[in-house]
Amino acid sequence: MARKIILDCDPGHDDAIAMLLAHGSPAIDLLAITTVAGNQTLEKVTRNALAVADIAGIQVPIAAGCDRPLVRSSEIAPSIHGDSGMDGPQLPPPTRQVDPRHAVDLIIELIMAHPPGEITLVPTAALTNIALAVRKEPRIVSRVREVVLMGGGYHTGNWSAVAEFNIKIDPEAAHIVFHAPWPLTMVGLDLTLQALATPEVQAGIAALATRPARFVQELLQFFGETYRREQGFASPPVHDPCAVAYVIDPQVMTVRKVPLDVELHGALTLGMTVADFRAPPPADCHTQVAVTLDHAAFWQMVQTALRNIGEGGR
Amino acid sequence: MARKIILDCDPGHDDAIAMLLAHGSPAIDLLAITTVAGNQTLEKVTRNALAVADIAGIQVPIAAGCDRPLVRSSEIAPSIHGDSGMDGPQLPPPTRQVDPRHAVDLIIELIMAHPPGEITLVPTAALTNIALAVRKEPRIVSRVREVVLMGGGYHTGNWSAVAEFNIKIDPEAAHIVFHAPWPLTMVGLDLTLQALATPEVQAGIAALATRPARFVQELLQFFGETYRREQGFASPPVHDPCAVAYVIDPQVMTVRKVPLDVELHGALTLGMTVADFRAPPPADCHTQVAVTLDHAAFWQMVQTALRNIGEGGR
Amino acid sequence: MARKIILDCDPGHDDAIAMLLAHGSPAIDLLAITTVAGNQTLEKVTRNALAVADIAGIQVPIAAGCDRPLVRSSEIAPSIHGDSGMDGPQLPPPTRQVDPRHAVDLIIELIMAHPPGEITLVPTAALTNIALAVRKEPRIVSRVREVVLMGGGYHTGNWSAVAEFNIKIDPEAAHIVFHAPWPLTMVGLDLTLQALATPEVQAGIAALATRPARFVQELLQFFGETYRREQGFASPPVHDPCAVAYVIDPQVMTVRKVPLDVELHGALTLGMTVADFRAPPPADCHTQVAVTLDHAAFWQMVQTALRNIGEGGR
Amino acid sequence: MARKIILDCDPGHDDAIAMLLAHGSPAIDLLAITTVAGNQTLEKVTRNALAVADIAGIQVPIAAGCDRPLVRSSEIAPSIHGDSGMDGPQLPPPTRQVDPRHAVDLIIELIMAHPPGEITLVPTAALTNIALAVRKEPRIVSRVREVVLMGGGYHTGNWSAVAEFNIKIDPEAAHIVFHAPWPLTMVGLDLTLQALATPEVQAGIAALATRPARFVQELLQFFGETYRREQGFASPPVHDPCAVAYVIDPQVMTVRKVPLDVELHGALTLGMTVADFRAPPPADCHTQVAVTLDHAAFWQMVQTALRNIGEGGR
Repeated sequence: MARKIILDCDPGHDDAIAMLLAHGSPAIDLLAITTVAGNQTLEKVTRNALAVADIAGIQVPIAAGCDRPLVRSSEIAPSIHGDSGMDGPQLPPPTRQVDPRHAVDLIIELIMAHPPGEITLVPTAALTNIALAVRKEPRIVSRVREVVLMGGGYHTGNWSAVAEFNIKIDPEAAHIVFHAPWPLTMVGLDLTLQALATPEVQAGIAALATRPARFVQELLQFFGETYRREQGFASPPVHDPCAVAYVIDPQVMTVRKVPLDVELHGALTLGMTVADFRAPPPADCHTQVAVTLDHAAFWQMVQTALRNIGEGGR
Repeated sequence: MARKIILDCDPGHDDAIAMLLAHGSPAIDLLAITTVAGNQTLEKVTRNALAVADIAGIQVPIAAGCDRPLVRSSEIAPSIHGDSGMDGPQLPPPTRQVDPRHAVDLIIELIMAHPPGEITLVPTAALTNIALAVRKEPRIVSRVREVVLMGGGYHTGNWSAVAEFNIKIDPEAAHIVFHAPWPLTMVGLDLTLQALATPEVQAGIAALATRPARFVQELLQFFGETYRREQGFASPPVHDPCAVAYVIDPQVMTVRKVPLDVELHGALTLGMTVADFRAPPPADCHTQVAVTLDHAAFWQMVQTALRNIGEGGR
Repeated sequence: MARKIILDCDPGHDDAIAMLLAHGSPAIDLLAITTVAGNQTLEKVTRNALAVADIAGIQVPIAAGCDRPLVRSSEIAPSIHGDSGMDGPQLPPPTRQVDPRHAVDLIIELIMAHPPGEITLVPTAALTNIALAVRKEPRIVSRVREVVLMGGGYHTGNWSAVAEFNIKIDPEAAHIVFHAPWPLTMVGLDLTLQALATPEVQAGIAALATRPARFVQELLQFFGETYRREQGFASPPVHDPCAVAYVIDPQVMTVRKVPLDVELHGALTLGMTVADFRAPPPADCHTQVAVTLDHAAFWQMVQTALRNIGEGGR
Repeated sequence: MARKIILDCDPGHDDAIAMLLAHGSPAIDLLAITTVAGNQTLEKVTRNALAVADIAGIQVPIAAGCDRPLVRSSEIAPSIHGDSGMDGPQLPPPTRQVDPRHAVDLIIELIMAHPPGEITLVPTAALTNIALAVRKEPRIVSRVREVVLMGGGYHTGNWSAVAEFNIKIDPEAAHIVFHAPWPLTMVGLDLTLQALATPEVQAGIAALATRPARFVQELLQFFGETYRREQGFASPPVHDPCAVAYVIDPQVMTVRKVPLDVELHGALTLGMTVADFRAPPPADCHTQVAVTLDHAAFWQMVQTALRNIGEGGR
């Protein structure tokens, strides 16, 4: 049976690919897309989400959520994602409308309306929406099947020496989400830096020659340039679809159970996702980290999804 | 014209008196009461709010909110308020029902449904509900007339050397509320420790001889005992009604404009409300602190409200 | 019997006056002056100390100590003390030589060479030297009679909303000194902001018409200008001599026993001296704070000292 | 030419082996041994150092230093090193005397008495002594050839999820030492957890059949038991000699230049040595970390040193 997910994201180049991967995979039943400020402002990432839905023919509700982190000041990443948050492809204005509900309420409604253990949350952005939902309706924690998120890193940082962007810009939200006792898989930088869109990968996508595939190609071209310029990568790491990929098939990566926590007070380590590898995890450990990616299988998933989408929305 | 307020509280002995003062004062138009975990669990303080509404004949919606602080673990104060959160008086089970809406949504709905500048928020508890409302619907900030809260202290602490209970148990929520650019009056311990229910005050209330007055008398008796035992007070300070009193008539206390902030990271100072008295406040300073209470006028307000309530709900 | 003191300072306008007060008071037996970076660099404050010794005829060893705070980066106060650290008076190059010993070693040597309970430490600067001495030779703690320091403030800050310069620039050193179990009197801003050099005070000093008095007059003139410009004071507060005054005669101020600690981790409160006034101090409380100054008696002490010094060193 | 080193340690089982390795290696010219509280109290670790010197015939000055960390409370490790700090072998009372100088002064004297660039500091304990020496005599920083220390870990902790004992018990001292601009090699847990005293290693040492070798054997036996019991190791990691080994021959391990810093404020990360691997190190990067150990070569060094020592001191 297809896995029901809510994708909470801030498109964002890799979020867009995560949307396509979720939409194009029969193993996934995408219930809703929710947006949150992060890679760009809430307004921009929501507009991007609608535009991606147009391209791919995604019909699920798209609801906007929080326009800033829980406690900290806003921080966005135009150096990586450009002024629009999804620079590169030229997109027409979205035809779809945003759902009138607040993302937090939509998340709560869907979870409470489904039987326990059905819905998987897949956040690929700052965890502000998820944290607010947990505090507003604590019963969702025991009803969610699992949380599979892109963010953090047990030995790797990108927004500081030891912290990753999604977690660092809203560490208090991450603290709430990591401390809630649901099963949580952290697909962090340790894993996603293996998901490189190499020239071969990009060529394979280009060969599909559909409109959505060209869109992905243009995303990867821009993303590749910024990652080369800003962080010295030869090929861009495509973070967010990795979380979706794990839901499609956990075999695409190895994972390791380990207690996780989020540092809220360090001068150098704020927003670090602290994993304690010193001993075997306790029996009630509800968190795990992604370790090694099957690169070929992962990109195969993406190609397959794009093939399934075909010419997409138009 | 009566001032429309939403009272966000965690009854709590002094919260109960704040409810009575708001309900019994013609200068106040009480729109709703919302509850939040603090003095006791959410369940208990909500039950207490309903019971006080019964006694006083309060008909407004009473909605329950957050059952724990935003980021920190729960902390309650049974040493001050007893196991029920309002020990002392014997109360029958409440006849009223809690409103089905979440406190956060009720707060947002009321504010958005009223013209800008009409509603005053009067929080007398941890600021979790208010903080969540601000993050969920940021437009409320410019629509609220002002926030008049009981909490904090510029030179006084009770839950640590320099921090007060309502702020210290949810400092992140307080940070959100103090940083929102609405007009905010902090009625802190510096002021409320002047609001002592002396024997004369208690005798005056007893002389009213109504059922609500007897209820207040029993509250003050228990409160007086715990404050004597726990903190060495001869008469108990009655914190929460002070915030309501300021809304009824700002002349009941002196205030001083001063920039305020909330410490989130200190080892000794976590949850301190930091006031910067070094220079005249900047022109755009939106915060002020209560300094000196007119003790007689304050207790006169409480007596008058009790007289207006008469035999109350039954 | 005169009280043996070591004055640890960073002249500095008010440090200079503290030197004169100690030197000119028969109640004080000044054993040594040690210097530490603070108001200006170690080189400049040491040169200033030697120059003041020249003017006043002070013959005791003057030893230089630490050139920067224990852990934090250097911070100096040219906005208050000018480029030389003692701007205003024109001083000839010092004729005295600095003692070859390190201040930390001189402090330890003197304390260990005297019987227990004889030497009082009077720090009027960052506590770097004292902290290093405590860690290098822990036995000094039980041999010192008491520590009477200028620094901190229980309700007052000047280098942040709640922290004072001497403590804030080296909070870790202050933490060490406040935690050592010797009797410690904190003469903080709460007290020293009462020690204003009013026009009457300045006129009284001018009337002495000695060279050291003219020197003090010039110090106060410059100090008055910077305090007016930087912090809006009508007359400058003369902090450091207050600590010396307390050693001369504790009656010059009221004090209150209270537990003290130093905040090392706050975002807003770093370097705050946290006093816990919530309950009577415990029996073993070894710290107290200065509260109220006898302004007339204090300035009388300064005048008397200047009279005793006469024409001073030349 | 042999490398002149000062070994600053807290014996400690592995410190003892570090002493033997330094003493028995012709590539090392051991100038002095200094001690500091850590694995056990200053008194005990100093006694242990003297006892090891007896066994091995080490004639250099042994001076005691600081008896506790700079700012934090004392923390020792009897769970690992036993009540004596070097439990296991039965040792007669030491015959040698401790040097009358304070470790901090001895370190400063030796460095200032030698030409610049001659002396290497090899700390294998908390960095309290080294930090105090740097603050007391800042000129040592440019005169030291390099610092090669055992402590920290870029991806590994033992005293918390991400911090190592030597750094965590005195993080402020570590901060001082890591920020001084001398060349610094951190031989941390990432490396030293490779230096396992396997049964083969232990058999090889036993085969030497000298008194010092038997002493090492007994150390490893006790150490192996505590590491098995406390941290689940099959064979004990022998941390401290790794730093000495690097001085003997840097080829024994690979290193990587990377900026390092020490976290002083984290709730989960206090004392973490934060390495920033995100980009190539800047040209002026003065710090590097040890990465991979040549296990065979390392233990060969230890065996050779033991052979050179022969029957040692008696």
